[in-house]
Amino acid sequence: MITKLDVEAPRRGLIEITAEVARLVADSGHDEGLCTVFVQHTSCSLLIQENADLSARRDLERWFDRLAPEGDRLYTHTAEGADDMPAHIKAALTATSLGIPIVAGRLALGTWQGLYLFEHRAHGGVRRLVVHIGP
Amino acid sequence: MITKLDVEAPRRGLIEITAEVARLVADSGHDEGLCTVFVQHTSCSLLIQENADLSARRDLERWFDRLAPEGDRLYTHTAEGADDMPAHIKAALTATSLGIPIVAGRLALGTWQGLYLFEHRAHGGVRRLVVHIGP
Amino acid sequence: MITKLDVEAPRRGLIEITAEVARLVADSGHDEGLCTVFVQHTSCSLLIQENADLSARRDLERWFDRLAPEGDRLYTHTAEGADDMPAHIKAALTATSLGIPIVAGRLALGTWQGLYLFEHRAHGGVRRLVVHIGP
Repeated sequence: MITKLDVEAPRRGLIEITAEVARLVADSGHDEGLCTVFVQHTSCSLLIQENADLSARRDLERWFDRLAPEGDRLYTHTAEGADDMPAHIKAALTATSLGIPIVAGRLALGTWQGLYLFEHRAHGGVRRLVVHIGP
Repeated sequence: MITKLDVEAPRRGLIEITAEVARLVADSGHDEGLCTVFVQHTSCSLLIQENADLSARRDLERWFDRLAPEGDRLYTHTAEGADDMPAHIKAALTATSLGIPIVAGRLALGTWQGLYLFEHRAHGGVRRLVVHIGP
Repeated sequence: MITKLDVEAPRRGLIEITAEVARLVADSGHDEGLCTVFVQHTSCSLLIQENADLSARRDLERWFDRLAPEGDRLYTHTAEGADDMPAHIKAALTATSLGIPIVAGRLALGTWQGLYLFEHRAHGGVRRLVVHIGP
């Protein structure tokens, strides 16, 4: 089963999508299986990260901003804005697709795991994910 | 087929799990297929790396320790210990899930590839993996 | 369906393999499904990146070269050449396997996404990929 899922990404940072993907898994009727989430962009990405403490996610975002800052003199690809090359780099360092097992009809995430769209542009807009659910 | 696999991770670093996952593939009876390994934590991760020379793995661990060191003044999330934010960052930079094809009843790893749990906490404890094997 | 795919990687950098993998998907006859691409090496990797502007890919290569340069005094694993440890590190930071949904008989890549082998050695040679296509 394939489903397209549009996510609003108005600003840079982690946007939780656990509930949206969990709902697709519940609707699929699969008791056991594999759910693969794929993002159709190269300036945002996917991340499974700790869902409890907001400070951990904020530190993560700031750490990536420092590792791949805007305005680096290395960049020659600057025509699409100062946030474009940092976005491609952060996307390369994280995930474009994630496979998550389904157990007892639910995503087999750990207790502290949340699923996030990691938006790297200042104004991402609507981001399209493609979700594959199989047995 | 879904199997839970517990791995002892008493200390930081790479812990080889190739044999444990290979055994699950052998037991599954699948001649061709896909084996997806998923780790249910956000402060350890998965890595396929060179299995021959210990010095390559040691350099890799030290390189990640330097890239995301303890005590960075950027961190505000420090309540869970000095090794916690570096652990989340290293997990974000590596893999939470890995799909490995099955060919002729075996994991289709290359000659020099080993499958590792990459523990990022000083004392990780027992880490739970969920392994999905399908046709 | 499992297919082995050999790719010539004569030099460091991104080598597009979208057309080769798309052909396997077309040949498979699957209308919907999942295509998993796996690379059997630890000094090259896989990347989905922007396929339009060459300057974005060049900047990406140069950024990774700067993050994990040759000649770093941290490295003790130097017997296989100055480009070997940087290659393992870059492979750890990017992907060894990628799952891409199949929709309407085609890889569900976004408009600006291309699939690349990211060669990290100065002279990679022939690199072997294993492609799994399932329903």
